[in-house]
Amino acid sequence: MMVILGYNTGMNNVENKFPIKRLVLIGVGMIGGSFIWSLKRAGLVEHVVGVDIDLDELQVATELGIIDSKSTLEGLYDIDAIVLATPVGVMASIFSVLKNKDFIKTALITDVGSTKQSVIASAEQGLGYLPENFVPAHPIAGREFIGVRHAEEMMFYGHRAIVTPHEKSSESAIAAVKALWEGCGSLVDVMTAEDHDKILAATSHLPHVLAYGLMESLTTTEYEEPIFDYAAGGFKSFTRTASSNPIMWRDICLNNQKDILYWLDQYQQTLSVLRELIAKGDGESIVEIFERSKSERDQHFEKH
Amino acid sequence: MMVILGYNTGMNNVENKFPIKRLVLIGVGMIGGSFIWSLKRAGLVEHVVGVDIDLDELQVATELGIIDSKSTLEGLYDIDAIVLATPVGVMASIFSVLKNKDFIKTALITDVGSTKQSVIASAEQGLGYLPENFVPAHPIAGREFIGVRHAEEMMFYGHRAIVTPHEKSSESAIAAVKALWEGCGSLVDVMTAEDHDKILAATSHLPHVLAYGLMESLTTTEYEEPIFDYAAGGFKSFTRTASSNPIMWRDICLNNQKDILYWLDQYQQTLSVLRELIAKGDGESIVEIFERSKSERDQHFEKH
Repeated sequence: MMVILGYNTGMNNVENKFPIKRLVLIGVGMIGGSFIWSLKRAGLVEHVVGVDIDLDELQVATELGIIDSKSTLEGLYDIDAIVLATPVGVMASIFSVLKNKDFIKTALITDVGSTKQSVIASAEQGLGYLPENFVPAHPIAGREFIGVRHAEEMMFYGHRAIVTPHEKSSESAIAAVKALWEGCGSLVDVMTAEDHDKILAATSHLPHVLAYGLMESLTTTEYEEPIFDYAAGGFKSFTRTASSNPIMWRDICLNNQKDILYWLDQYQQTLSVLRELIAKGDGESIVEIFERSKSERDQHFEKH
Repeated sequence: MMVILGYNTGMNNVENKFPIKRLVLIGVGMIGGSFIWSLKRAGLVEHVVGVDIDLDELQVATELGIIDSKSTLEGLYDIDAIVLATPVGVMASIFSVLKNKDFIKTALITDVGSTKQSVIASAEQGLGYLPENFVPAHPIAGREFIGVRHAEEMMFYGHRAIVTPHEKSSESAIAAVKALWEGCGSLVDVMTAEDHDKILAATSHLPHVLAYGLMESLTTTEYEEPIFDYAAGGFKSFTRTASSNPIMWRDICLNNQKDILYWLDQYQQTLSVLRELIAKGDGESIVEIFERSKSERDQHFEKH
């Protein structure tokens, strides 16, 4: 944890029990709440100030012991670390409010957003510069639920977390953010925001769009039978992500447009190929694709 | 259970413990094995003969106590009930082998295939007529695994099973097949094969095609990064069905072509709409779709 101590985290001496004395969590929901709970479990943070437009969430987070006090953005002071965990679409306006705070130059700044190029652009837009003490990050774990009451202390344990420094991020800030996620039990990878966004568009953003799309397609197609009554486990698994937070996912679509469209176009082409094979009754080609898909999936994931 | 007794199930007197004395399971895999296990648990069948082209499966099924003896199709005799649980593509040829057996006119005949119009056509094609003692059925439950070692005694308990009589099915045969599924603890619905195929194309066949398609699309698109290393729970859920049996699903695609293409075309249209909204950055319309999808899903399924 010395790596966090080495950063500007408000530590006055090495006897201090907590590397981070006062952290603000902006956006008190499932992911942010889980992150804070994990950090507290690891003894990495002493006092957490919660900021959220939903005051009920602040109340729940207080009762759960995730946050120790509440504030508005404007009322923040003496902050050693800033964690942004709002939908990515509002981050630029948050940075612009934080711009004139004393602590913005010294506090460690990070976030948990799903689109990293846009978060970096939001920081530059809101602050007018790219701060060296800002290192974006993104945990590759989550649930389809909404709200801090779904926070879990072990949500990130054993899962990957991606840290995406920008060109100005300092080595000490990068090391500090890595140490925070390692403290949560995550397996930390460092990559560019560009690589992150391209990869996550494929493995996370696209599947969410496809699942929302399936519910939409079946719901809006005129068909009188109660089709959802006859949906089994496969359908529930497939559409699980369609129960995710619509605002969060709208923001992801708007903030990783190019990469999502890249994979969506690839996918539409694959579906068109499959459509033609089914229409032609080309069983040999269909089974070849299904076998390749099964083999890839079985190779990459355990069977459950 | 008298309803099964009332049918030609080989019962000589009501003192007999088992309504069905000798049942043949043709296609000894996960679903067929689970069905037999459930029937045995319910005391509905005494002796089960297993038939499969994979002799290892017969061995496993014997060790598990699912089947009591093995046979070839040609060697079958004295059968009171026939359960077809093979991929739907081979059912016509099975019916044609069974055509000349004495018991084909008297035994209760049913199946567990995922496409019901094609199974009825296969019976007519293989036998040369539509037998009144044949009532197709389809349990709405399953797993993405392959093989009888994945059979579960309680797989169908509390899940729906759809019975799809054809125009010649006798009332007593329909009642008997319903009673078998009720014996497994299933909630039995009766509908036409046409309705079944249209509904299941939406809730089961299409999602399987989409999941296979996603694995195929990501696997075959040239992109050098190890994208699957960064797949979280949402991706695993979404693609779970892509680990299903490729032969079985090829057969479903070839045997429910029209309905699958109907829903696939609807889906492609929905994706094209979503694509344009993302490309235009129309957040308002995107969130409207996501909210409608989430609300539909949350309404129909419990949250897990």
